[in-house]
Amino acid sequence: MKRAPTDLLTDLYQLTMAAGYFHRGVHEKRVSFELFVRRLPPYRRYMVFAGLETVLEHLRALRFTEAHLDYLRSVPALRPAMSFELCEYLRDFRFSGEVWAMPEGTVAFAQEPLIRITGTLFEAQLVETYLLSAINTETAAASKAARVVGAAQGRQVMEFGSRRTSPEEAVMTARAAYLAGFTATSNVEAGYRWDIPLAGTAAHSWTMAHATEREAFEAYLAVYPKERTTLLVDTYDTLDGVRNAIRAAPGGLGGVRLDSGDLDALARGSRALLDEAGLKDTRIVATGDLNEHKIAALLGAGAPVDVFGVGTELARCVDSPNLGAVYKMVHDHDADRPVLKLSEGKATLPGVHQVYRVIRDDRARRDIIGTQGEFHVDAEPLLVPWMKDGALCRPLPSLAAIRKTCRHQLAALPEDVRRIDDTATAPYPVATSDVLNDLLVEVQRRSREEQGELQ
Amino acid sequence: MKRAPTDLLTDLYQLTMAAGYFHRGVHEKRVSFELFVRRLPPYRRYMVFAGLETVLEHLRALRFTEAHLDYLRSVPALRPAMSFELCEYLRDFRFSGEVWAMPEGTVAFAQEPLIRITGTLFEAQLVETYLLSAINTETAAASKAARVVGAAQGRQVMEFGSRRTSPEEAVMTARAAYLAGFTATSNVEAGYRWDIPLAGTAAHSWTMAHATEREAFEAYLAVYPKERTTLLVDTYDTLDGVRNAIRAAPGGLGGVRLDSGDLDALARGSRALLDEAGLKDTRIVATGDLNEHKIAALLGAGAPVDVFGVGTELARCVDSPNLGAVYKMVHDHDADRPVLKLSEGKATLPGVHQVYRVIRDDRARRDIIGTQGEFHVDAEPLLVPWMKDGALCRPLPSLAAIRKTCRHQLAALPEDVRRIDDTATAPYPVATSDVLNDLLVEVQRRSREEQGELQ
Repeated sequence: MKRAPTDLLTDLYQLTMAAGYFHRGVHEKRVSFELFVRRLPPYRRYMVFAGLETVLEHLRALRFTEAHLDYLRSVPALRPAMSFELCEYLRDFRFSGEVWAMPEGTVAFAQEPLIRITGTLFEAQLVETYLLSAINTETAAASKAARVVGAAQGRQVMEFGSRRTSPEEAVMTARAAYLAGFTATSNVEAGYRWDIPLAGTAAHSWTMAHATEREAFEAYLAVYPKERTTLLVDTYDTLDGVRNAIRAAPGGLGGVRLDSGDLDALARGSRALLDEAGLKDTRIVATGDLNEHKIAALLGAGAPVDVFGVGTELARCVDSPNLGAVYKMVHDHDADRPVLKLSEGKATLPGVHQVYRVIRDDRARRDIIGTQGEFHVDAEPLLVPWMKDGALCRPLPSLAAIRKTCRHQLAALPEDVRRIDDTATAPYPVATSDVLNDLLVEVQRRSREEQGELQ
Repeated sequence: MKRAPTDLLTDLYQLTMAAGYFHRGVHEKRVSFELFVRRLPPYRRYMVFAGLETVLEHLRALRFTEAHLDYLRSVPALRPAMSFELCEYLRDFRFSGEVWAMPEGTVAFAQEPLIRITGTLFEAQLVETYLLSAINTETAAASKAARVVGAAQGRQVMEFGSRRTSPEEAVMTARAAYLAGFTATSNVEAGYRWDIPLAGTAAHSWTMAHATEREAFEAYLAVYPKERTTLLVDTYDTLDGVRNAIRAAPGGLGGVRLDSGDLDALARGSRALLDEAGLKDTRIVATGDLNEHKIAALLGAGAPVDVFGVGTELARCVDSPNLGAVYKMVHDHDADRPVLKLSEGKATLPGVHQVYRVIRDDRARRDIIGTQGEFHVDAEPLLVPWMKDGALCRPLPSLAAIRKTCRHQLAALPEDVRRIDDTATAPYPVATSDVLNDLLVEVQRRSREEQGELQ
């Protein structure tokens, strides 16, 4: 049997736990959970937060249909809990909690809460898997994309990775890349959803569908204006391809694209041929397994590349595929009790947090992780409210606005932190506040005492 | 402006090319494209083909809505081609081609066509991005999963990675893992869609939501039967956790789960405590950044682990995140002309292919990549037809049937090829047939001549 796709993306244990809370009568206890990254992922000095829009839309749409309930009653591990009362509760379920988060495009660091859910224990638990899923992947992609944009030193960067990742992740990667500063994407669905500029002309298959390369170029330019067209020139021999492109568009051509071989040498050779033919405005587009390091090396060597296309390395975050965010309960509001976890290497900060970024002369100087409501000189709090009582309480910013936020955030970072190489430099300073330090000591002491007493 | 999600997942250049073919009057030329992997991805000796069901559903549903057409008319790079006639053509567009592919769960190797599309140049070009997107990600996941299953030597393996990848990819990963031999998944949506067995009980947050660990365990067992329950024991101290589990379920317990620390030592310590308490049937579940190598090491050392849970390493295919499949035109049927690409390192095999697997004594001996319709002794062709004229011509196998196919395929592989380590052993033999070799020589010669003549 196969059922039509729905949006019931959660781990089973979120449901067994939520049902357990229901039967214990504690499911409406008010709690806070926070989502954060314990350590920066490998090869990253900062993150660019993304995924909030996806999360907020999921929370607003979350429902259990009759088909879901029928199915859940059939799951052996859950069945003992699927009473009539729980089914009624699930049927009426709507996310009714509060969401605080950094705006998308905000630069963030390890240990900093990116998003906080305050609501019933039932709902806060239930949504964990989806939150982690969306934030992990979109933040990983935006963080990688920001590095690529930095390496391109103001040159245009196109996102071409859709074929390298799953269909919906491809769309979200295109969005993450654009918000982090990419110029355009090839992903039509992403363009359709958010009006992200689209880029793309023709592939090797276009050339191969014609008897000769030159015929292929002329056929393309019979349909599309040559000033806007980039011709892919490496199907047979790259420099011969450039010559064919010049012959096909003697009066001017948008660009030529190099997708294989020694990109530095081929870019120089292509530039020489184009300049010689008077096509000084024709841009050279380089693609083919590029990443931030290869782009930096090409530009460092003086390769005359005007536009970079990045695919696989961004779409699969090849150097650092797992962001590793976690989602932990930090406060039990009914008991007015901060919560923490003591496992070795997995300790958490207790209580409801805020991140304060100290900014002087338009430069981010350091971050302070504190409790909600502290005051720090020259610092602005990064977490803001997005939902109250399950409804949006702040308009979702447009993607253009998010992109602007990100540009400002990246520009404010110390230059050392923006570097893409691995040389040891001081990390961006993030410290916990005195208030939080005191709370941590007190809660650790109390927790150890209680565990001792009660076991 | 933001538009509601649709399924227009393609690269812009598929549309610009398809529109170009339309205006050149060659869009209904009949061609074949094949999808294959040039070289096995790093750390892989074979692949498990997956993603066909996703592809076939996409092809059956592919439509251009009025909203799509409005949008496409607004895209600068496409606008010159969006004539009234093309809009009419897109409005009526249905995928009408033929699809041959290996059944999902088939073991495959580099250069072997996994799927072949024969249809109009327009439609065959248009669907490239989606095909690559789905096959790349699902085949990568199934290929990784098969290694994990092999390393577990018959012990149960659970897929727990949903939080580590994007929502829809998480669902497809759960399916890929199950078809490759995993026992269960935590992903409720995957269970809902395909009746994949679900696994999961409680997380650290359940324990932290109670005053003590023991209270948390007792609360869980008040709702769920203890014989079916696995208690997570590492929130505070793992072996103390096991003791608390034993106290909470003195008569018997499904399992205990270890999620951090030295899993070998903790599994032995837990086993000793459980046995001492008479809980010999209580299973030990190990989780926490596991992969095939760690599982093999634990079992090699004799760690008494009964069930493994794998998350991140599978969900992000951490060791080999990019399968790198490509999709190339291989035949122009109107001209009865095999097509090939000559780029350095990116050469393709011309013509319409079939893969013949030589099987003797239930063992796969070698594969032959030939042309469609050859005969080879003891060999069976792997590609079969799935769609004709845009309609299914073969029922989609159930996921259970696919899983069985995969089990048989893996069992038939030479043991060396199934090894997960990196020691150099002979790769599985894959050769091109004499007929194909002759064709390749002829087409290369003709292609070089024509390029020479025509340029």
